[in-house]
Amino acid sequence: MTDDQNTFRPEARVPRGFADKRASTIRAERRIVEAVSQVYESWGFEPLDTGAFEYADALGKFLPDSDRPNEGVFALQDDDEQWMALRYDLTAPLARFAAQNWETLAKPFRRYAVGTVWRNEKPGPGRYREFIQCDADTVGSARPEADAEIIAMAAAGLEAAGLPTGSAVLKINNRKLLNGLLTAAGVETDGQKLGVLRAVDKLDRLGIEGVRLLLGEGRKDESGAFTKGAGLKGPAIDSVLAFVQAGGGSRADVLNALAGVIGGSEEGDAGLDELAKIDAALRGLGVSEEQATFDPSVVRGLEYYTGPVYEAELLMETGGERFGSIGGGGRYDDLVARFTGQPVPATGFSFGVSRLAAALKAAGQETEQARGPVVVIAFDPERMADYFAVAAELRAAGIAAEVYLGTSGMRPQMKYADRRLSPAAIIMGDDEIAAGTVTVKDLDLGRELAAGVTDNAQWKAERPGQQTIPRGELVAAIRRILGQ
Amino acid sequence: MTDDQNTFRPEARVPRGFADKRASTIRAERRIVEAVSQVYESWGFEPLDTGAFEYADALGKFLPDSDRPNEGVFALQDDDEQWMALRYDLTAPLARFAAQNWETLAKPFRRYAVGTVWRNEKPGPGRYREFIQCDADTVGSARPEADAEIIAMAAAGLEAAGLPTGSAVLKINNRKLLNGLLTAAGVETDGQKLGVLRAVDKLDRLGIEGVRLLLGEGRKDESGAFTKGAGLKGPAIDSVLAFVQAGGGSRADVLNALAGVIGGSEEGDAGLDELAKIDAALRGLGVSEEQATFDPSVVRGLEYYTGPVYEAELLMETGGERFGSIGGGGRYDDLVARFTGQPVPATGFSFGVSRLAAALKAAGQETEQARGPVVVIAFDPERMADYFAVAAELRAAGIAAEVYLGTSGMRPQMKYADRRLSPAAIIMGDDEIAAGTVTVKDLDLGRELAAGVTDNAQWKAERPGQQTIPRGELVAAIRRILGQ
Repeated sequence: MTDDQNTFRPEARVPRGFADKRASTIRAERRIVEAVSQVYESWGFEPLDTGAFEYADALGKFLPDSDRPNEGVFALQDDDEQWMALRYDLTAPLARFAAQNWETLAKPFRRYAVGTVWRNEKPGPGRYREFIQCDADTVGSARPEADAEIIAMAAAGLEAAGLPTGSAVLKINNRKLLNGLLTAAGVETDGQKLGVLRAVDKLDRLGIEGVRLLLGEGRKDESGAFTKGAGLKGPAIDSVLAFVQAGGGSRADVLNALAGVIGGSEEGDAGLDELAKIDAALRGLGVSEEQATFDPSVVRGLEYYTGPVYEAELLMETGGERFGSIGGGGRYDDLVARFTGQPVPATGFSFGVSRLAAALKAAGQETEQARGPVVVIAFDPERMADYFAVAAELRAAGIAAEVYLGTSGMRPQMKYADRRLSPAAIIMGDDEIAAGTVTVKDLDLGRELAAGVTDNAQWKAERPGQQTIPRGELVAAIRRILGQ
Repeated sequence: MTDDQNTFRPEARVPRGFADKRASTIRAERRIVEAVSQVYESWGFEPLDTGAFEYADALGKFLPDSDRPNEGVFALQDDDEQWMALRYDLTAPLARFAAQNWETLAKPFRRYAVGTVWRNEKPGPGRYREFIQCDADTVGSARPEADAEIIAMAAAGLEAAGLPTGSAVLKINNRKLLNGLLTAAGVETDGQKLGVLRAVDKLDRLGIEGVRLLLGEGRKDESGAFTKGAGLKGPAIDSVLAFVQAGGGSRADVLNALAGVIGGSEEGDAGLDELAKIDAALRGLGVSEEQATFDPSVVRGLEYYTGPVYEAELLMETGGERFGSIGGGGRYDDLVARFTGQPVPATGFSFGVSRLAAALKAAGQETEQARGPVVVIAFDPERMADYFAVAAELRAAGIAAEVYLGTSGMRPQMKYADRRLSPAAIIMGDDEIAAGTVTVKDLDLGRELAAGVTDNAQWKAERPGQQTIPRGELVAAIRRILGQ
């Protein structure tokens, strides 16, 4: 290729909102995915992969209504004029799959999925447009026990991923409770109910008095901006506030407290009955009060869910960073009906793999520093086949090893081995080969000693951690360095 | 959701050229990816994930030259007017990554990647527009030993994936040989060289005489259609044919044979020297003649490669289906230069994960039938918490288990367990619970016996494989059924 001045040279750059992942990130995410997958499989959930694209009409709210429907999703028009879009979650493809294959599936259908999803949103620092989700859903069971199973499995999955009991909690609520309470209080319109959910969702940030204002006429913030409220009257506001404050204590305590503030509506009673069944099932599954609580203040998104909702909250210290919710889910009985007209009960839990990995890292859980391969130094280019034989011998003994393949001299090669976090470098010149020996440099020890060294000449003379040994003792010597 | 006649109901369908993957396919692909990743890591290759999108200009030959550049890739315009496209392989993103991070990488840079790629091609039976590739590349080493390492590692990876030695072979060639030979024969234009490559690439299909015609004036096929040839003259044709037939025998034999037919040009000699070094390194690595051969008829794509090329060919019997090439690669020294103007030597191997899984399946290697979870029958809805406790006990013992969560009666539940390939079903009614027992049905045994049964009434009376045992013996009984 000639370096013509007129040749177009694109800039090497990652598209906005996307990121390259290096080894340590990938390994941390793989550990999570493998641990959680193993748990989900042991609970009888089978893996399902759907394609990256769905037809835009199957994704629902992102119907193409303009020439380039790009709101929220990455969409393009296929050559048969149909609009396709990259999936923005794993639930919509599941609903499509279930609707398409309903007749032939063993039901209830339990599946889990790990996959990339894409959101066409404005990128920013830490805001990516591509990430990996891990979902588990049961489709075709209306039983509250199906919700309990998902909650218990989510707790087991998070624990397997590296969150010991006590470092995260599943908070459970039921949409039917607040719906029932509002109906009993005479609130009938969907808009007003949505306003109530929005107000409750701000409890963490605004506190009870802030929510009280938003449930009523509205609230003026510090800047003077006014947010219109849900327009409830006094007694209804009091009921809602009593409801959201009914949490705390054991699941049985919260059930009792809720019975006192919900009472009356058919929907509210049904919601309470479901929570009681979930509690019984959780006890059967050995899920402690520490792992899963009832919390009436959990809102979990505004629409879409139709019954129990649950949110996984991180409790552990994360170096000042507050992670809060690391996953959630709930019951959604209407998604499959979009295709078939027949409601199909479904419930599921979802978490972001990268987000969980970041939370674990911030909490100091990711302490394991990955070790690089042993590096065989390319001391003499004529001896490459010998070096390859040494590397092959180490690999056959289960030790990761490579031969340096560049053209630099000794010093840059040692620097390379150091940057690769190699535990050891192996040097074989004519002398060693003739004598049937190898020189092994313990790089871990070298790094350790170098931290305390002051005299450079002395350092060089002593060559700490370097030894010449018989070729036949190589594997044993490396094992000692690796502490095996 | 009301089933209004006017409600729009999209059809639940997979986009053309895409496919859903069920458990057995996913598990077969995962086994391959895990086995190969472990090998690649032990050779000192680190994982790298890049995003699904690249800027279209970074992908090279798919520059947007029309309003919707959709030739071969899935492209869309970002809201800042830049064209992005889904990656169609893992090499172009690697080149972009290497160019972007060259200064800070430890070099040579070894990485492997497993990822989805997309091709916007006309879909057809068995032709998908989305598939998973697994690549390993070394960037920054011009040494032929780097090619040898990739070849040896590819052989080790394929073996770990389930292809025992002798069931696949790595065929190695070098672009420089044919180039040198053509230069020596007075063929100078790139167009004519491309014509020669195209002709040689048809050796398998047309045989020597067909290739001879295509190297010369051209060839008329059975239908009478004429394909214009490369336009070589007699002696040049003879050289090319002698070259492509120089394979067979050991790597040393082929090197000798090639020396006789290539001789003369500087480029050809350089190519021979590289192959000799590759052979020496392969011997150092213990790669047998059975695992890797020199084959001058390997073409491996038409442009892009600049030196050694290699192709993995499946040799094992695959039930009449001919798989042929299951992967390949080679040296490409110009890709990074597209960005920086500086040539960076690189070499790599790539295979399609789904394709390899399909080959293994066709070859009968995928014999392991995945077992479903033990199913606890939902005999009495009031006892769900008890059933959950049984499932939890089994899982704690490392046995996959689930409680049936539908609302059907006994018979459909047994059918469900059967469809899930459950090894056993567990039945607990009031009687069992009062007596501290469980009833265990060995479904594997049942399926086995059912295959030979003729009398339905007798079958029912004997209820083969069903036993009622003390609750405390449950785990041991299931382990017996599982053969553990």
